[in-house]
Amino acid sequence: MAEIDQATPPVDQLTAMNLNDAIQNHAFSDRVLIRSIVGRSDGGAGLAGQRVRAGGWVKTGREQGKGTFAFLELNDGSCPANLQVIVDAGVAVLSKLVATGTCVVVDGILKSPPEGTRQRIELRVEKVVHIGEVDPAKYPIPKTKLTLEFLRDHLHLRSRTNTIAAIARIRNALAFATHSFFQEHHFLYVHTPIITTSDCEGAGEMFQVTTLISEAEKLEKELIKNPPPSEADIEAARQLVSERGEAVKQLKAAKASKEDIGASVAELNKAKESLLKLEERSKLKPGIPLKDGKIDYNQDFFARQAFLTVSGQLQVETYACAVSNVYTFGPTFRAEHSHTSRHLAEFWMVEPEIAFADLQDDMNCAEAYVKYMCKYLLEQCLDDMEFMAKNYDKGCIERLRMVASTPFVRISYTKAVELLEEAVRDGKKFENEVEWGIDLASEHERYLTEVKFQKPVIVYNYPKGIKAFYMRLNDDLKTVAAMDVLVPKVGELIGGSQREERYEVIRERIMEMGLPLEPYEWYLDLRRYGTVKHCGFGLGFERMILFATGIDNIRDVIPFPRYPGRADL
Amino acid sequence: MAEIDQATPPVDQLTAMNLNDAIQNHAFSDRVLIRSIVGRSDGGAGLAGQRVRAGGWVKTGREQGKGTFAFLELNDGSCPANLQVIVDAGVAVLSKLVATGTCVVVDGILKSPPEGTRQRIELRVEKVVHIGEVDPAKYPIPKTKLTLEFLRDHLHLRSRTNTIAAIARIRNALAFATHSFFQEHHFLYVHTPIITTSDCEGAGEMFQVTTLISEAEKLEKELIKNPPPSEADIEAARQLVSERGEAVKQLKAAKASKEDIGASVAELNKAKESLLKLEERSKLKPGIPLKDGKIDYNQDFFARQAFLTVSGQLQVETYACAVSNVYTFGPTFRAEHSHTSRHLAEFWMVEPEIAFADLQDDMNCAEAYVKYMCKYLLEQCLDDMEFMAKNYDKGCIERLRMVASTPFVRISYTKAVELLEEAVRDGKKFENEVEWGIDLASEHERYLTEVKFQKPVIVYNYPKGIKAFYMRLNDDLKTVAAMDVLVPKVGELIGGSQREERYEVIRERIMEMGLPLEPYEWYLDLRRYGTVKHCGFGLGFERMILFATGIDNIRDVIPFPRYPGRADL
Repeated sequence: MAEIDQATPPVDQLTAMNLNDAIQNHAFSDRVLIRSIVGRSDGGAGLAGQRVRAGGWVKTGREQGKGTFAFLELNDGSCPANLQVIVDAGVAVLSKLVATGTCVVVDGILKSPPEGTRQRIELRVEKVVHIGEVDPAKYPIPKTKLTLEFLRDHLHLRSRTNTIAAIARIRNALAFATHSFFQEHHFLYVHTPIITTSDCEGAGEMFQVTTLISEAEKLEKELIKNPPPSEADIEAARQLVSERGEAVKQLKAAKASKEDIGASVAELNKAKESLLKLEERSKLKPGIPLKDGKIDYNQDFFARQAFLTVSGQLQVETYACAVSNVYTFGPTFRAEHSHTSRHLAEFWMVEPEIAFADLQDDMNCAEAYVKYMCKYLLEQCLDDMEFMAKNYDKGCIERLRMVASTPFVRISYTKAVELLEEAVRDGKKFENEVEWGIDLASEHERYLTEVKFQKPVIVYNYPKGIKAFYMRLNDDLKTVAAMDVLVPKVGELIGGSQREERYEVIRERIMEMGLPLEPYEWYLDLRRYGTVKHCGFGLGFERMILFATGIDNIRDVIPFPRYPGRADL
Repeated sequence: MAEIDQATPPVDQLTAMNLNDAIQNHAFSDRVLIRSIVGRSDGGAGLAGQRVRAGGWVKTGREQGKGTFAFLELNDGSCPANLQVIVDAGVAVLSKLVATGTCVVVDGILKSPPEGTRQRIELRVEKVVHIGEVDPAKYPIPKTKLTLEFLRDHLHLRSRTNTIAAIARIRNALAFATHSFFQEHHFLYVHTPIITTSDCEGAGEMFQVTTLISEAEKLEKELIKNPPPSEADIEAARQLVSERGEAVKQLKAAKASKEDIGASVAELNKAKESLLKLEERSKLKPGIPLKDGKIDYNQDFFARQAFLTVSGQLQVETYACAVSNVYTFGPTFRAEHSHTSRHLAEFWMVEPEIAFADLQDDMNCAEAYVKYMCKYLLEQCLDDMEFMAKNYDKGCIERLRMVASTPFVRISYTKAVELLEEAVRDGKKFENEVEWGIDLASEHERYLTEVKFQKPVIVYNYPKGIKAFYMRLNDDLKTVAAMDVLVPKVGELIGGSQREERYEVIRERIMEMGLPLEPYEWYLDLRRYGTVKHCGFGLGFERMILFATGIDNIRDVIPFPRYPGRADL
């Protein structure tokens, strides 16, 4: 509990209530969160006179008045604002406190600062409770302008910077907004598997999950320490078995005593057992186990080849076709050698799936979800958004407001292609040619949402040739009930579709695309038994953060980015 | 929107309000959720007279009155209760509707059932909108008593059973309770990596993540289709380069025209290029790439060996030491060949981490979190809990109430061992011997929480020899500031500790345990620069579900269980 001195001067009702908040928000620690002081609507002014314990890391520190006192800007990550802390030389060795990154816990009294200063409140220190020192000469991220690229080489420390901490708070807010939205609409959160033996689209490059290599290495070490038996060893053991067998036979023929025969049989069994063990060991071969020249996955952990999931969609459909409204929110993986600012090998996806619902419902859900997240950020993270607007993307708050309040444009793919062709006729240059049947390129998507409409656009009913087998075939037999949500800044944010619920049609589509039926039999069962119209979509969570913050590189909006050649920590 | 006929008879204010709820809760579909009818406090009675569209799967269906009408028990997974539906033979072919598992969407009028029936409301069908048929002869999970073990062989359909659907709703509630609890206490949700190059405790068996095998297989296929060049091919290419070089030389010597020399140089360059390509291809070798006899992980996707995480703790500490209060909630992995009812190869963990906090704070947080989850289930999932109590564990609701309201007992490890020794003296038999220094076995833990105290017990300050290097050394130099939360039914539910924040001490501990320092340098940096006392714990999420539901096998409380030999779907 915060060290609140009950004898401090009386405070007005409002202050007392807020202070109560501060105590409630102690977050299982003996200091108050800095947000419960400076994050108040009055900037903390109403708390003047209170005694508190505060802790955090020094953002900026400087000795003043010829070393008689020090100013520290203290931040504990609970909000972007710092608490200004003043320490007199009599209270602590000031030089130990002022280095950027120093951890400090202090007891003191909150005071109103002199007129004309930026702060609404400051903390006068009475006692320094803890110092976690920093040697500025060695500290990898001292207070200088550090590029986001530089920080990627110091993943374990970069969350101490204002930018990465603000992104962490925004990411957290978007994650909770996601859960809140779906819970409010009675969707069940379903944990789809990370390790999978199905390949969602038969397309993506997948990471393999295996214990074969480590088992082989273990065996190799074992065989060096304890070499396998030679042919001669085994021959000798065989010889022993036959001798022992002969001995038993002779005793029996000689009608020896029960005890003698028993003892002899025991000897024989021992010899047999030891032969068996030798034969077993002689079969051990170093290296990955093979069968008919191919890797023997029967010996892998799951007795078959296993991979990291590229999407939970197919699996979550099994739940939608049982409990109606569900969503996943988990990590997904692509083993693609993309070195771009938009791709990660490990990223998080949100995938709702809705039974008794069609493409219109899907679009309604996607639009409501994106709007909900935007509103949530504006309400819960405005201070962090202001930081992003000031330092990275001055339009980011306006963009959130626009998306939260503007109905999304909805156009068919055919209409989208017409608009793009029109643009070309009017002199717009695209790198990728536009014609009906192409997969829209990022430049096309961004033109539609950023130039043509300047608001979010949902494009629906795509040519079946460029989409996955599970998307519902439209009555024109040329298009499928797919939809993409395009937003300014990132282009495609969401991809979804109504799923093909007709058994005969989906079976046909699987074969038409040259995919084997067998691995999809369980998926076909969902259509064989009690089939229901249903739809769903996927939102790339990091894309949403890029959209919200205006940050350019996806590696900066996930705490521990994984990409070709890098998986630090 | 639900098809609510505005011309239906007037309803009282309360009913209208609840109906409004029902419409709001339409969950992006054109039918109302069954929970918004039968899940009301009046069981739906107040909705009599309303026209609605409902959809779901038939739990039980039977033709009655010599085939003049049918009763259907319809369930859409939004709550455990079914909606009773009555269809007249004039409206549909009844035989197509009654099979268990059939998907049905109907329009109709809600009516009060005859006095003396169990239902408070029933739906009289006017129109059948959709039938997803089921052939009962082929349906793998017809309405008979199916064991949970049998259902594990039908993962894609088992969520259609009452038990697995109830577990899904309970799991969902516990997940959202987790997020709500930590958000209310200002913890940030941090996504720690799934693919990692650090091993948290240097202990657990880890799954390897690699693209080496698939790359090798791809190459192998490629080399069969397109064999590498022979020595003769390369010699011929070399010969061509030298001839072309000679030609250029001669033309230059003969002072030939610029065009002629240019053309000749172009020919030479072409020959050089083709030689280079051949040389490159000749280096390709089938199989996993080796270097000095060992696998060359430089050529793996991340340019080093990578694994699936066993815990996000070490990584999330980097965020705690920057933004104070954080938690992870994600999948973790163990490649252990455990065939028990308590182990999975893939399971979900919740791991909070708190800066400026010690072991007391850690215990306070753990206790508050567990209590919060219990209360949440009692408030939000009582109908599902009643189902579990009736069918699986009659004490489960009482257990939740007890844990939610009883202060947890807190005893030191030393005291715990004394109590166990006392029990042995009083005649209690344990399989594992009790003496100071042992790791408490499950039987010991369950004795303490189920027999001795009959309430949750937190045991703290364990011998350092049986705990991880990162736990804070106590002043006695014999124990570390670790704590385990034990609860009836499952034993250990939570394990946590205060982390060692003193650089010299933790460095010593790493070496003492025979671990290499180098992989932990980043972790040591957290202590080198601005160190802070901090603590945290891990809760096995499936354990919590076992505790709540009374289900015995962990494979039944995760949607897609992974264990040795099995990773279906």
